[in-house]
Amino acid sequence: MSQFPERVFIKEEGPREGFQIEGAGVPTARKIELVDALSQTGLEHIQIVSFVHPKLVPGMADAEEVVAGFTPVEGVSYAGLWLNQKGLERAIASQRLDLQGKLTLYASDAFLMKNQNRTREQQLAAQPDLIRMYREHGIPVRTGFVTAAFGCNFEGDVAAERVVEIVGDLLNIAKAEGENLELVGLGDTMAWATPDRVQRVVGMVQDAYPDVELSLHLHDTRGMGLANAYAGLQMGVRHFDAAVAGLGGCPFAAHGGAAGNICTEDFVLMCEEMGIETGVDVERLIECARLAEDIIGHPLPGKVKQGGSLQTMRRKLAG
Amino acid sequence: MSQFPERVFIKEEGPREGFQIEGAGVPTARKIELVDALSQTGLEHIQIVSFVHPKLVPGMADAEEVVAGFTPVEGVSYAGLWLNQKGLERAIASQRLDLQGKLTLYASDAFLMKNQNRTREQQLAAQPDLIRMYREHGIPVRTGFVTAAFGCNFEGDVAAERVVEIVGDLLNIAKAEGENLELVGLGDTMAWATPDRVQRVVGMVQDAYPDVELSLHLHDTRGMGLANAYAGLQMGVRHFDAAVAGLGGCPFAAHGGAAGNICTEDFVLMCEEMGIETGVDVERLIECARLAEDIIGHPLPGKVKQGGSLQTMRRKLAG
Repeated sequence: MSQFPERVFIKEEGPREGFQIEGAGVPTARKIELVDALSQTGLEHIQIVSFVHPKLVPGMADAEEVVAGFTPVEGVSYAGLWLNQKGLERAIASQRLDLQGKLTLYASDAFLMKNQNRTREQQLAAQPDLIRMYREHGIPVRTGFVTAAFGCNFEGDVAAERVVEIVGDLLNIAKAEGENLELVGLGDTMAWATPDRVQRVVGMVQDAYPDVELSLHLHDTRGMGLANAYAGLQMGVRHFDAAVAGLGGCPFAAHGGAAGNICTEDFVLMCEEMGIETGVDVERLIECARLAEDIIGHPLPGKVKQGGSLQTMRRKLAG
Repeated sequence: MSQFPERVFIKEEGPREGFQIEGAGVPTARKIELVDALSQTGLEHIQIVSFVHPKLVPGMADAEEVVAGFTPVEGVSYAGLWLNQKGLERAIASQRLDLQGKLTLYASDAFLMKNQNRTREQQLAAQPDLIRMYREHGIPVRTGFVTAAFGCNFEGDVAAERVVEIVGDLLNIAKAEGENLELVGLGDTMAWATPDRVQRVVGMVQDAYPDVELSLHLHDTRGMGLANAYAGLQMGVRHFDAAVAGLGGCPFAAHGGAAGNICTEDFVLMCEEMGIETGVDVERLIECARLAEDIIGHPLPGKVKQGGSLQTMRRKLAG
């Protein structure tokens, strides 16, 4: 049954996703320009950098400068990503970000081993230490994440029951440390989701844990990104990750065709046209998408920046 | 309520859509190569040319040679498009196509005037003559089509009630001439559809005319093509137009960002992954998409030709 939310909350990941992959030659000032433009759109959560090794990810070598250089806008939360203790220390030292702890488990043991060189048990065992480390730094842990929740290039299909179990693991680990996860993300890391799979997995997790808010992280590698997001909306999901202009892609995902997250302005247009509030000015966001394309220097996959919004069409027709 | 069909039927429009827009410099032999490759995929209906004025559409100047040159495969229906008597005569003279008459009405008076220089009344009045002309040539009239059924760049939003009314007009005109329309297409000619709009319009037409089979013609200009198709599948729609690799676009649609139909292989993958039979071998279709890209000479928008099918992934994992 359809039960669209009245309002969705978008975590914009474009700057981090995009410059992580394509940012090596992009001047720091232009990265800051995009962050500042995004701050004027109504987006409330923008992930702007990752603190990773500059040799592995040259596009993020200037993460500290980007963080030091952007102009914060009230009401906007600016986030960074880190993958280890060293990255976290850099994020803390940068001072201007809203730091949130996140617990991550994998629905694919093969991808966990490939990506983190850990077994399922080792990953489970590492989470309490992570919570304590965050606590020492005064960083709240309110979110969990399930990687490869809909399937995996290294393991194949993932059973919905497995995802339910992992969400339970996340909640229990947090609870045992006195923390309460408010939001759990389901990551379609390698684009195995289909709309019916989204509905089944989301439905089963909602049935098992009705008090947990879910978010969807959907890659568009097989063109089903917005269809999957629509399926999520039909299940009442309110939190979505997205990337302006469709920036990004997953460098760890084993094949060259891996696309980025769903395109923010395409998703915003779909929601707004369906009467679902986003808080985002789609016209300003389209300008940001065109700016992103100009900065990156080649066409980016988002469609609405080419096709235009329907609101613009209506205004023109109204004279 | 979801009620996916067991089987969908795809009308492949890639060759006609693609070469109509981009085919001026493409050798006839390569156009034939694509048609012949598509014939080996399991697609049952392929629209291969349009008979239009060669000065207006240089990419279709060799329509007769394409029709004369391809190798028909049993079980595949090959179609052409025409817009007037002269075009129909060329289609008849070409001899090798399955000719079907189609009645077309517009849900936008402004677009009808722009495109055909006719009023609503003139368009209605022209349909009986069309039926009689087809009858004289022994061509059956089994399908109707509603142009701009979800909105229009020249008129704005289109009410679902108007679409219901027009479908009724189509059925009545045919009936008055002793014909029975079996299939009525709803065209999202200028990409105003959203998934909820698809569900509302399709639902209202189904309620009003439960015996009429509907088809959807969806353009992907705003990235919602597959989401809209998914919404149609949820309503039980079984007939879809699509274009391999996402070839094409609408030259009459008043702005440069107009994209082609939904991408056939992306749609096939989505259906097959959801357990909906298409009759199409997605791997062969992906090869056709790559061939189309090679023939056209620049990247085409379909995603799966880059990302690969999940079936391939599963086979690799199974060793």
